[in-house]
Amino acid sequence: MPIHVTIWNEDSLQETHDYVLKMYPQGLNGALASIFEGNPEYTVRTVSLSDAEAGLSNELLDDTDVLLWWGHCKHGKVPDDAVTRVYQHVMRGMGLIVLHSGHESKIFQRLMGTQCSLRWHEDNDKERIFVIEPHHPIMRGIPAWFELEAEEMYGERFDIPAPEQLLAIGWYESGDVFRSACTFSRGYGKIFYFQPGHETLPSYHNEYVRRIIKNGAHWAARDRELDRELGSAFAPSLEKKHL
Amino acid sequence: MPIHVTIWNEDSLQETHDYVLKMYPQGLNGALASIFEGNPEYTVRTVSLSDAEAGLSNELLDDTDVLLWWGHCKHGKVPDDAVTRVYQHVMRGMGLIVLHSGHESKIFQRLMGTQCSLRWHEDNDKERIFVIEPHHPIMRGIPAWFELEAEEMYGERFDIPAPEQLLAIGWYESGDVFRSACTFSRGYGKIFYFQPGHETLPSYHNEYVRRIIKNGAHWAARDRELDRELGSAFAPSLEKKHL
Amino acid sequence: MPIHVTIWNEDSLQETHDYVLKMYPQGLNGALASIFEGNPEYTVRTVSLSDAEAGLSNELLDDTDVLLWWGHCKHGKVPDDAVTRVYQHVMRGMGLIVLHSGHESKIFQRLMGTQCSLRWHEDNDKERIFVIEPHHPIMRGIPAWFELEAEEMYGERFDIPAPEQLLAIGWYESGDVFRSACTFSRGYGKIFYFQPGHETLPSYHNEYVRRIIKNGAHWAARDRELDRELGSAFAPSLEKKHL
Amino acid sequence: MPIHVTIWNEDSLQETHDYVLKMYPQGLNGALASIFEGNPEYTVRTVSLSDAEAGLSNELLDDTDVLLWWGHCKHGKVPDDAVTRVYQHVMRGMGLIVLHSGHESKIFQRLMGTQCSLRWHEDNDKERIFVIEPHHPIMRGIPAWFELEAEEMYGERFDIPAPEQLLAIGWYESGDVFRSACTFSRGYGKIFYFQPGHETLPSYHNEYVRRIIKNGAHWAARDRELDRELGSAFAPSLEKKHL
Repeated sequence: MPIHVTIWNEDSLQETHDYVLKMYPQGLNGALASIFEGNPEYTVRTVSLSDAEAGLSNELLDDTDVLLWWGHCKHGKVPDDAVTRVYQHVMRGMGLIVLHSGHESKIFQRLMGTQCSLRWHEDNDKERIFVIEPHHPIMRGIPAWFELEAEEMYGERFDIPAPEQLLAIGWYESGDVFRSACTFSRGYGKIFYFQPGHETLPSYHNEYVRRIIKNGAHWAARDRELDRELGSAFAPSLEKKHL
Repeated sequence: MPIHVTIWNEDSLQETHDYVLKMYPQGLNGALASIFEGNPEYTVRTVSLSDAEAGLSNELLDDTDVLLWWGHCKHGKVPDDAVTRVYQHVMRGMGLIVLHSGHESKIFQRLMGTQCSLRWHEDNDKERIFVIEPHHPIMRGIPAWFELEAEEMYGERFDIPAPEQLLAIGWYESGDVFRSACTFSRGYGKIFYFQPGHETLPSYHNEYVRRIIKNGAHWAARDRELDRELGSAFAPSLEKKHL
Repeated sequence: MPIHVTIWNEDSLQETHDYVLKMYPQGLNGALASIFEGNPEYTVRTVSLSDAEAGLSNELLDDTDVLLWWGHCKHGKVPDDAVTRVYQHVMRGMGLIVLHSGHESKIFQRLMGTQCSLRWHEDNDKERIFVIEPHHPIMRGIPAWFELEAEEMYGERFDIPAPEQLLAIGWYESGDVFRSACTFSRGYGKIFYFQPGHETLPSYHNEYVRRIIKNGAHWAARDRELDRELGSAFAPSLEKKHL
Repeated sequence: MPIHVTIWNEDSLQETHDYVLKMYPQGLNGALASIFEGNPEYTVRTVSLSDAEAGLSNELLDDTDVLLWWGHCKHGKVPDDAVTRVYQHVMRGMGLIVLHSGHESKIFQRLMGTQCSLRWHEDNDKERIFVIEPHHPIMRGIPAWFELEAEEMYGERFDIPAPEQLLAIGWYESGDVFRSACTFSRGYGKIFYFQPGHETLPSYHNEYVRRIIKNGAHWAARDRELDRELGSAFAPSLEKKHL
């Protein structure tokens, strides 16, 4: 059965800013969708904040194995009930990939239990990403390091819990470093944060960035065999007690 | 300078239930306070849900190095703004020790990013707690294992993120296991979850439980030297770029 | 391409002890091989200590994606050069699954950097294994817990580094607990330790034990795309320095 | 009782190379010892490879709470029995701080279970060290980042197991990054790896480097209350079994 990928975008930048469409003629959703299109292992849908239920209905989430999240300017506009729906689906096993400026989205903050703040500037710095755990399936096919000619600088300290696995560290010519690829799990769901993807820069055309996102979707995808209640429950004794 | 310990309780059980006062004549707050009293390394205050601002004013939290949290029946009654104040102080470095049924408190759920659910029953099972990381400062002075004659059974799967350090595992005669002592960090704050402490059972009289809580307060206590902003901020380039 | 599984056994118990053959008529190697046989995703070979080069030639290891290791009485008889060959192949990416009493094998001690000691007895205790990380691929298809009617007791403290992921905890009716399924990585290789498998007891006939071992082989199998030097090397500056 | 610090050096560079003595007139041992001298919380001794028993007798190690290790050119000259003595003392609780080029010492490789290789060059690059876990006691008193005007470049991928805690990441003007401060535990002992300290460069005069090493000694120091056997042992049933 193919992996059901849903890509969510706040759907603002590409509507209003020519420079995004210049870089990504199909918009960010289109650029990300093209990673999976034509591959029978995946089905892909794109939704956005302006869709009904903020694009995040229970019906759609039930049918989603992994959700990609790209947001930036409209974090505060995402309705709390939509955030709760995504949270609940992660608890029950839906995978989540948080991209770039999604670091300060409500859903990522809620899952991390921290503010997910960082230092930043937009000087089109060169970034070089070093793979730290090359044996992890998300890093399959990625060289020891690769370069992005220009990215928004995201610098430490990144206010996240220590990742379960730190997969990559970014170097910036501005003198900064960043934990650029991190995995977490929450409830029955797996979460992958990946830093590249400023809306005016070509990172989503980079072959390694695309491969990492594809690998990440494969790694984070829901285990359809895992269908188990989550919630405290009275549990009778498993052993007869010594009387 | 002594460590400023604040102990918070929902302050319901001991007011209304004789069996709590039979076990803990000074109430749960009193029992926990006695761990620190008379020791010049600590100052200790007790507060409760029925106090002004739910016992959790900014003034008090500013002056608290580590907060102990015991709640059970009134998780839903804790005002959201009080939870937010505690969360913000943990972000800025206040330590937090969540005891027993605090596992499903709003503050623990918010910091963990999960529901923190578990399996449970109240059959006064014997519990045996095995130390997994004996070199951790929280386990200083604790033998390889110790027994609690009776505890409420808390069983896996405990819905938490993988702890940064798993310090102890509990065995129950009912046939269950539990990760009974776990550390986490969030923001600049350190968090310790410790499972024993059912209100009608003598665990807080146990010398090892008391030592672990005291060690935990020492470990989690705020670093007063760490006074740093938390929050995303524009950061100019640290290096002059190659032009 | 199928995953190349090699199963190694010290090959002593089943030669000399009728009770092993009574439980496992094809021996332990045969019992483990039957997990993979008939499945086109895997090829499987069995070797033993009495084979040339202790069954662990470089040619075989080069062609092995994941090595299963079962040893008990003859840890000290495994030649150091064979241990070194296995170590080197793990460094370069070969997966390793260490079963049961392999916890004190030279190869596991060498990879862990500890003695891997534990507490034990053979009273045919009932064991109940609780899944701690149900979303991990090694736990796919496994219920929240399952029982083994009888196992050798392996108890904490198990002297290992904190596992990268703690997948399961065992409860024993004798009053003990054990971290029964643990993952690690070393060099480019992935390592999975799994506790069940006493030679006289039917654990390797248990459907869940078999599924976990199969899942483990899939998880640990070498990434054939990862072919990279491991070893310190002079590295010229990646950036032209500011002069 | 003061913490007993022992500082070990291969004692070669400063004997033979004028440029080391120019930077560190008391040698590297003297430079490191000066971090602790005059502080009643510590006693400090220095030993070297040319001393009897390679400077690492059981008597000395028994009386050592934390051992600092600086070696570079003579890793292969350290006798295996001395390495084994250090390993055994770490197992029993002695702390170990491995500095700079000690990354490829036999003792660090043995404790890590990997080769601990890395990429390197000596171009006197500027390094900037970012604190990742500012609440960790080893980072007490250290700013968000600090600079070393020149260091030997140590670059990723550093072939170590994922650290239990990643405390700092280094940025180099050459375009590289490195996990420059990492903690581990093995047996009952705590281990801290810290990258700065090339023998011809002034890092051990830097106030933050000195503070981190002092904090590290405090963190890693043996728990004198922890005196427990390490080694597999028959353990009778803790519970009477159901008969």
